Amino acid sequence: MSKGITSKNEDYSQWYNDIVIKADLAEHSSVKGCMVIKPYGYSIWEKMQAVLDQKFKDTGHSNAYFPLFIPKSFFSKEASHVEGFATECAVVTHYRLKNDGNGNIIVDETAKLEEELIVRPTSETIIWNTYKGWIQSYRDLPILVNQWANVVRWEMRTRLFLRTTEFLWQEGHTAHATSDEAIAETRQMLDVYADFAENWMGLPVVKGVKTPNERFAGALDTYCIEALMQDGKALQAGTSHFLGQNFAKAFDVKFTSKEGKQEHVWASSWGVSTRLIGALIMAHSDDAGLVLPPKLAPIQVVIVPIYKTDEELQKISAFATELSSKLKSMGISVKYDDRDTQRPGFKFAEYELKGVPIRLAIGGRDMENGTVELARRDTREKQTVGQDGLEIFIVQLLDEIQRSIYNKAFNYREEHITEANSYDELKELLDTKAGFIAAHWDGTPETEQKIKEETKATIRCVPLDNKLEDGVCIYSGKPSKQRVLFARAY
Amino acid sequence: MSKGITSKNEDYSQWYNDIVIKADLAEHSSVKGCMVIKPYGYSIWEKMQAVLDQKFKDTGHSNAYFPLFIPKSFFSKEASHVEGFATECAVVTHYRLKNDGNGNIIVDETAKLEEELIVRPTSETIIWNTYKGWIQSYRDLPILVNQWANVVRWEMRTRLFLRTTEFLWQEGHTAHATSDEAIAETRQMLDVYADFAENWMGLPVVKGVKTPNERFAGALDTYCIEALMQDGKALQAGTSHFLGQNFAKAFDVKFTSKEGKQEHVWASSWGVSTRLIGALIMAHSDDAGLVLPPKLAPIQVVIVPIYKTDEELQKISAFATELSSKLKSMGISVKYDDRDTQRPGFKFAEYELKGVPIRLAIGGRDMENGTVELARRDTREKQTVGQDGLEIFIVQLLDEIQRSIYNKAFNYREEHITEANSYDELKELLDTKAGFIAAHWDGTPETEQKIKEETKATIRCVPLDNKLEDGVCIYSGKPSKQRVLFARAY
Repeated sequence: MSKGITSKNEDYSQWYNDIVIKADLAEHSSVKGCMVIKPYGYSIWEKMQAVLDQKFKDTGHSNAYFPLFIPKSFFSKEASHVEGFATECAVVTHYRLKNDGNGNIIVDETAKLEEELIVRPTSETIIWNTYKGWIQSYRDLPILVNQWANVVRWEMRTRLFLRTTEFLWQEGHTAHATSDEAIAETRQMLDVYADFAENWMGLPVVKGVKTPNERFAGALDTYCIEALMQDGKALQAGTSHFLGQNFAKAFDVKFTSKEGKQEHVWASSWGVSTRLIGALIMAHSDDAGLVLPPKLAPIQVVIVPIYKTDEELQKISAFATELSSKLKSMGISVKYDDRDTQRPGFKFAEYELKGVPIRLAIGGRDMENGTVELARRDTREKQTVGQDGLEIFIVQLLDEIQRSIYNKAFNYREEHITEANSYDELKELLDTKAGFIAAHWDGTPETEQKIKEETKATIRCVPLDNKLEDGVCIYSGKPSKQRVLFARAY
Repeated sequence: MSKGITSKNEDYSQWYNDIVIKADLAEHSSVKGCMVIKPYGYSIWEKMQAVLDQKFKDTGHSNAYFPLFIPKSFFSKEASHVEGFATECAVVTHYRLKNDGNGNIIVDETAKLEEELIVRPTSETIIWNTYKGWIQSYRDLPILVNQWANVVRWEMRTRLFLRTTEFLWQEGHTAHATSDEAIAETRQMLDVYADFAENWMGLPVVKGVKTPNERFAGALDTYCIEALMQDGKALQAGTSHFLGQNFAKAFDVKFTSKEGKQEHVWASSWGVSTRLIGALIMAHSDDAGLVLPPKLAPIQVVIVPIYKTDEELQKISAFATELSSKLKSMGISVKYDDRDTQRPGFKFAEYELKGVPIRLAIGGRDMENGTVELARRDTREKQTVGQDGLEIFIVQLLDEIQRSIYNKAFNYREEHITEANSYDELKELLDTKAGFIAAHWDGTPETEQKIKEETKATIRCVPLDNKLEDGVCIYSGKPSKQRVLFARAY
């Protein structure tokens, strides 16, 4: 098959789009900014969901479901929240269409809503309005709830997976009796996200806290995990917000404490979205297509028979079937592709494109010799391996590939955290090496904003494990106690 | 705990609502017609999803995701489809809010969409518009895709789970090269639904085909599974539609056949929704609360310790922990409720209300005697059972309960299929015994409509296993070849 993927070095952005389209992950729909997630792309999301959902349940959370629509008045109750989302809201104003008598379907103006409904861009407001009814006493706390849902943010410039008007995500919304508990929850979920990114996605991340400019609208603190893509741009892969009592105050949610006092409830919220699929693609793939870490690959092993006669095929099939069933019993997903409509070379290219971690090719000669040809997708190395104990070899190799993919991304990331000690240095680094640039900043929103306007770089985060170090702000020359990470970002 | 459930015989409708609310399954939200599915209710939906999703995958389907919004023009392309849904559509007209300068958040009239977007009430139109790009040749067929999603139908009268403005569902949309294949798919998915209803939900269903009046808007044939609730009203639990080439024609989706001809593609669609939770509640529950079939119960076994001293509690806990781990290893979900904030009687009532199939109570005396007190939720029978081999006893009992719940519903259903040989008889049966009433009908939409207007009963379906039998229509006296099933329905 002709791949037609633009080279990553030639045009990174086009390379990304080519992979998304050619690997059958997603496509633009006829609805502006909305994507269709195709079966292969969706199966990656399902793998992600399964792992994350289990992690949420293991940390005591339950799933629930809240309305898609938010009355405009609720949406407006938390001032900074509505300010953050008002400019990108889909608004429902009517609830009926009609035939105008000439065969045209038009909006029925007699069916206008008294109060407009906002299609949720995030659910804090509708959920805290609901929690009001659930919480009376400290005995009702904590509430540890997650929702898997679609949300809509009206984006002017969209990119498949990375930024779409509608996207799928999960949003956790928790309620606590104390500030400490809510902060601990916020940090715990950041750790869950980091663990998922690193140990499942093979994506090293920096855990950090956002500057006030970059905080979630309505949060007291936004924690994030920041990853680096292969073009040196950063990508925010997940956020966890400490909301303080902001939403409890906006929706008047109080509880009676053990001491009998009426207090406002403390909150966190946290989310990751289908954007993670974009990160996964960008972090590991190459000019031959998608590279998937085994733990999230819908197909981990593909077996392609190479035969001249039916007799050869029968022998190969018997072996492939037995191997498949052994691998499946060990929890490995296998596809035996014996389609006779495509040639082996076409299949090889297709599974490379789709990022299947291990490809086995088995021919008549292999059957005689008791071998198979094994190709690793990540390194594109081929080797001949014996059929005896092959399943054990494969299980170990999948682990090795998972580690190797992570290590490659980790080394890239480590090589792309650079210190800058002057504004000129920052600007030069942004235009040459890119990556995260660790520099001193005076802590003011004004300086941050100026740097953003002049360089398009933002402060991605203040790393949680930051060392304190005396210095001066690269922009203002004012004193600074620590470096922060600047980067251009998706 | 005070249950406060209205008796089923006193007020069936209130009884249903009481169970939904008191068992913490769902509640009305502040958004008209939209519900909040609470964690316990959602966990039942998750069990249903897991089983159905596996069945869809086992029959060759993959999941995908299509946009929430449908441009009005697409929506209008299939004439009978838009006619069926136009009067109940949420319409998005704007994409921005703004502050009016006086602190009020208002719709920004400068951000009006050129073309209104409909919040999907079902996705045939957006999906067939997408399939157009996926299908060129017979080699691209069949397409076997399912979507788990939320949909919106603007309902004036809503009831939790049974009829809500927004609901969760799955919708399968398949594309085929031939009519036969599409019909086979339609029938296969009906069988999948019937199997799920009967063997997981414990809900006997009649498989049948809808009359033209009751067909899905845009279908050539709608197949359905119809169940009977304990008040003798019918409930449509799932539908599977043979769409012919209607949507392929509306969206110009053609393929090149093996013979090299251009032909329109054949289609099916099929769905079940959170309405199934309503059916599950109504079919089995009693005045003490929810009764859940073990296969869909989020908690299958609850263990409640009854103790006077810490020493007693320790012994009971040691046993309960060991039993729990044995049961868990056998795939049984267990909860050991050793909360010291509630008394055993409160816990008993709570788990009855929540429909936990088996409750074990263990006291100090039990530990001495090597016994437990076991209560079945469905029959409310208690028995003393030995601790030795208890896990095996429980596994077998859960099977027995599953069968028993089904049999009870089956017997009720069988007793409530009655033949009527005159219109008077039909009317009398509707007002007394209710249930399905098998009667002759002349096959005309006019007669069906008249009967509906006069009795509020509809033809639920023509059963697939119907026997042919000469007779005369109970309404018009015209000749008829078979009986159809009338009922009042949810």
